[in-house]
Amino acid sequence: MTSGPLHGVSVLAAEQMHALPHATQLLALMGAELSRVASGEVDIALRFRDDLAQQNGSLHAGTIAAIADTACGLAALSMMDAGSGVVSVEFKLNLLVPAAGERFLARGRVVRAGKNITFTEGEVVADEKTVVATITATMMQRRPR
Amino acid sequence: MTSGPLHGVSVLAAEQMHALPHATQLLALMGAELSRVASGEVDIALRFRDDLAQQNGSLHAGTIAAIADTACGLAALSMMDAGSGVVSVEFKLNLLVPAAGERFLARGRVVRAGKNITFTEGEVVADEKTVVATITATMMQRRPR
Amino acid sequence: MTSGPLHGVSVLAAEQMHALPHATQLLALMGAELSRVASGEVDIALRFRDDLAQQNGSLHAGTIAAIADTACGLAALSMMDAGSGVVSVEFKLNLLVPAAGERFLARGRVVRAGKNITFTEGEVVADEKTVVATITATMMQRRPR
Amino acid sequence: MTSGPLHGVSVLAAEQMHALPHATQLLALMGAELSRVASGEVDIALRFRDDLAQQNGSLHAGTIAAIADTACGLAALSMMDAGSGVVSVEFKLNLLVPAAGERFLARGRVVRAGKNITFTEGEVVADEKTVVATITATMMQRRPR
Repeated sequence: MTSGPLHGVSVLAAEQMHALPHATQLLALMGAELSRVASGEVDIALRFRDDLAQQNGSLHAGTIAAIADTACGLAALSMMDAGSGVVSVEFKLNLLVPAAGERFLARGRVVRAGKNITFTEGEVVADEKTVVATITATMMQRRPR
Repeated sequence: MTSGPLHGVSVLAAEQMHALPHATQLLALMGAELSRVASGEVDIALRFRDDLAQQNGSLHAGTIAAIADTACGLAALSMMDAGSGVVSVEFKLNLLVPAAGERFLARGRVVRAGKNITFTEGEVVADEKTVVATITATMMQRRPR
Repeated sequence: MTSGPLHGVSVLAAEQMHALPHATQLLALMGAELSRVASGEVDIALRFRDDLAQQNGSLHAGTIAAIADTACGLAALSMMDAGSGVVSVEFKLNLLVPAAGERFLARGRVVRAGKNITFTEGEVVADEKTVVATITATMMQRRPR
Repeated sequence: MTSGPLHGVSVLAAEQMHALPHATQLLALMGAELSRVASGEVDIALRFRDDLAQQNGSLHAGTIAAIADTACGLAALSMMDAGSGVVSVEFKLNLLVPAAGERFLARGRVVRAGKNITFTEGEVVADEKTVVATITATMMQRRPR
């Protein structure tokens, strides 16, 4: 988790890097960043901020969805052909407990990479101890033209 | 859709208003706003912005999730007892087509309001014509203490 | 709804018929049958039976899932190339109220048919009046070899 | 997996036993049976049968849903107050690969047991080696009257 985004991202093929500046724009808006990128596994770190929260002082489900879906999408992308893009087909988010905490880590990983469809799953962990949400997401490859 | 948030919001009980400033913080971050609030139905409007998009120029799934989940949550809240809060238990988002467009409307509505659990559904429509995503979300009431 | 399976099924291309005997084996086990097949829309009818129910006298979620998923899958199949098969990629079932009743109709329809992926949705209605469950299902075409 | 249903079931409180005959009616119809019941964890075993399959010789998604949902529901029930019943609020099933095999094991377990809502997850494994499906399911307690 100490590895910075530039280091971690280097595992992705250089041709896939073009996808990241855009993917990371929404992350940047939220103050989130890639904290680990391995083959089929991506972590995204986020610090609590009031404007990402809801009435009860915990992270908004929309914020959780954004980092969890992005972690899963980039995990899928990391196993696709160079030059590919990735789109979410669908995802389901379970919000187990109020997402209270200071630091959140969204972890996404590939469960099965098929020809067209990649199944991913992940979770969002608060302060390195509490799983606050789980996600299952179906990703589709957009092949280079 | 011409009704501003303040007008629309007036349908919610005054005691529920306290929940909105926080709910709308994430909306404000994204430049989204409540465009209609009726009993059991809430619409949220969003303009396209580069930092809400992904590599292919369409809205990021995380952005879509945030406005769709919020619309469903506020729709559920609008039918709950005054003073209640609302939390998302889970939601599933289907991303039918790339979310290309200038203006997006997330519509949430209550399918069934139970004692503990409220079932909601909704969709995100681009430029008043294309349904780009659908959502089903389970909401839970947080009773006033 | 009075039309029998043989009549309704005739809308499906003859080459797709091979898929139906198997699809309908599970239906037969449950005493369910195709009651309507149109392009992109399929209904399946089921009568209540004790061995399809759970402790509270309503249909078991597994029974509801079986007829709802089949209705969605056949709705998707009805719009695919002749000779294709269909497989479920994922589905989510919402169980709104206990599925009490005598006759149940599972309705599936295509929301968007893509090249690889077909999005479907549907519901299960008890005694022609109460929606007891909703489903969203992602289907994939298996092309003829 | 060698423990028979009667032995395994003994972990459930005697007062919860009343729920099982009904829950197991659908299992019996499919030739499935409880193979392990522990606190918060339930396994259900099923042998392949033609009438539970679909066109391509693998288990029908409806069959998979039935055993996976039941395993999750009974896992939730095993941690609820004596005399309670359990109902599925919603579940999502991911079908990773065609469910080919001779023997299938649906494993359900509790992720978080709340006051009203219990989050569960599980998977269906073919021939003790291939995960063919995953499930996340939200369960609700029906309190004794």
